[in-house]
Amino acid sequence: MRALVFDAYGTLFDVFSVTALCEELFPGKGTALAQVWRAKQLQYSLLRTLMDRYVDFWTITGDALTYGCASLGAELTADRRSRLMEAYLHLSVFSDVVPALTALQTRGCRLAVLSNGSPDMLRSAVTHAGLDRLLEQVISVDPLGVYKPSPVVYAQAGARLGLTADDIGFVSSNGWDVAGAASAGLRAFWIQRSAAETAEVLGAGPSAILRSLADLLPIADAERAL
Amino acid sequence: MRALVFDAYGTLFDVFSVTALCEELFPGKGTALAQVWRAKQLQYSLLRTLMDRYVDFWTITGDALTYGCASLGAELTADRRSRLMEAYLHLSVFSDVVPALTALQTRGCRLAVLSNGSPDMLRSAVTHAGLDRLLEQVISVDPLGVYKPSPVVYAQAGARLGLTADDIGFVSSNGWDVAGAASAGLRAFWIQRSAAETAEVLGAGPSAILRSLADLLPIADAERAL
Repeated sequence: MRALVFDAYGTLFDVFSVTALCEELFPGKGTALAQVWRAKQLQYSLLRTLMDRYVDFWTITGDALTYGCASLGAELTADRRSRLMEAYLHLSVFSDVVPALTALQTRGCRLAVLSNGSPDMLRSAVTHAGLDRLLEQVISVDPLGVYKPSPVVYAQAGARLGLTADDIGFVSSNGWDVAGAASAGLRAFWIQRSAAETAEVLGAGPSAILRSLADLLPIADAERAL
Repeated sequence: MRALVFDAYGTLFDVFSVTALCEELFPGKGTALAQVWRAKQLQYSLLRTLMDRYVDFWTITGDALTYGCASLGAELTADRRSRLMEAYLHLSVFSDVVPALTALQTRGCRLAVLSNGSPDMLRSAVTHAGLDRLLEQVISVDPLGVYKPSPVVYAQAGARLGLTADDIGFVSSNGWDVAGAASAGLRAFWIQRSAAETAEVLGAGPSAILRSLADLLPIADAERAL
């Protein structure tokens, strides 16, 4: 394992940090909207890839918001749309992220992000969270025109880092992303951000389940190559 | 429009007719299980296609059931699994299906099914519902090894019927399936099986929204070619 590559949304960044603004704008519907928005965002990334109709993740995030508000009977004015989309550019970072990445960097680990996000979205979220100094690369699927869990995406991490798949440890909170990475030959770690989450049944699973990104430190210590 | 091609699950067959058995086996959890089961079945078909890890729809349906029970803390014994999977082989048919397909057949319409289902699942469901005498062909994605909404799937309908995409009317209750068919050049109709359903935001939509399959009769009458 020569590098650690992290998923962004749900893994480093809390996509549900938009819930408070959803609730402020649509009282009583905030939690439901945040959940539908996120679920549709993921579903549309899969559907668009299968349809050969790629659009970038910013567009997909907007389309998912349109669907979410329509499904809940919540009126999405231009101002509300603007504020909600803007919230996606400065999502909260989970509290274990900066300490764990700092400690990994100190150990000499190469660290990167591999995300469905468009380059602009990722740049904004990474900079806002102060992660730019910790990450060697922020890799977006955008130049490929397909979304995770296409094996092409995980292969891109290797290509960009100059490593083979089995030299890369990949960390995601999304079980399907873990399955995709493992299926593509990476060593995949599932960070279970909620104890209520259920393991996916997709024929490929994680090497280990993490409760916190701090759990990566003993793994890195055990890897002489890192 | 030279032929009408129907999606199977959710369009002709009521996938939620398994809810009663879910409730009998897991009191208080039946509705939730039926919903998670169906949602995961769809999600796994997308994920498996993107991962280049196709398995047939029977396997996916079983994997989705495993996930659904685990997520709800419902103990899936071998006997319960067997009974629930068996239920998928004789789903209820919506009440408008036989009258509408019979009337369309009488008008000389060519009728077919195009489904994610494996050939055995489709054969069983179609025969059980008495639809075999109404359908010229039952086309499964299985020989292609990819699921809807890949354009390859919709092209297969044309190939099997000897028609070009724009000669085919495609009918589905699944908004994403409608988008996939429309994106592939078919004339797509969305049958809104529940008034609560929200239109998908996928850049391609239906030619018309149907409340019942009987709404196809005036459309067929207006088409001289049929």
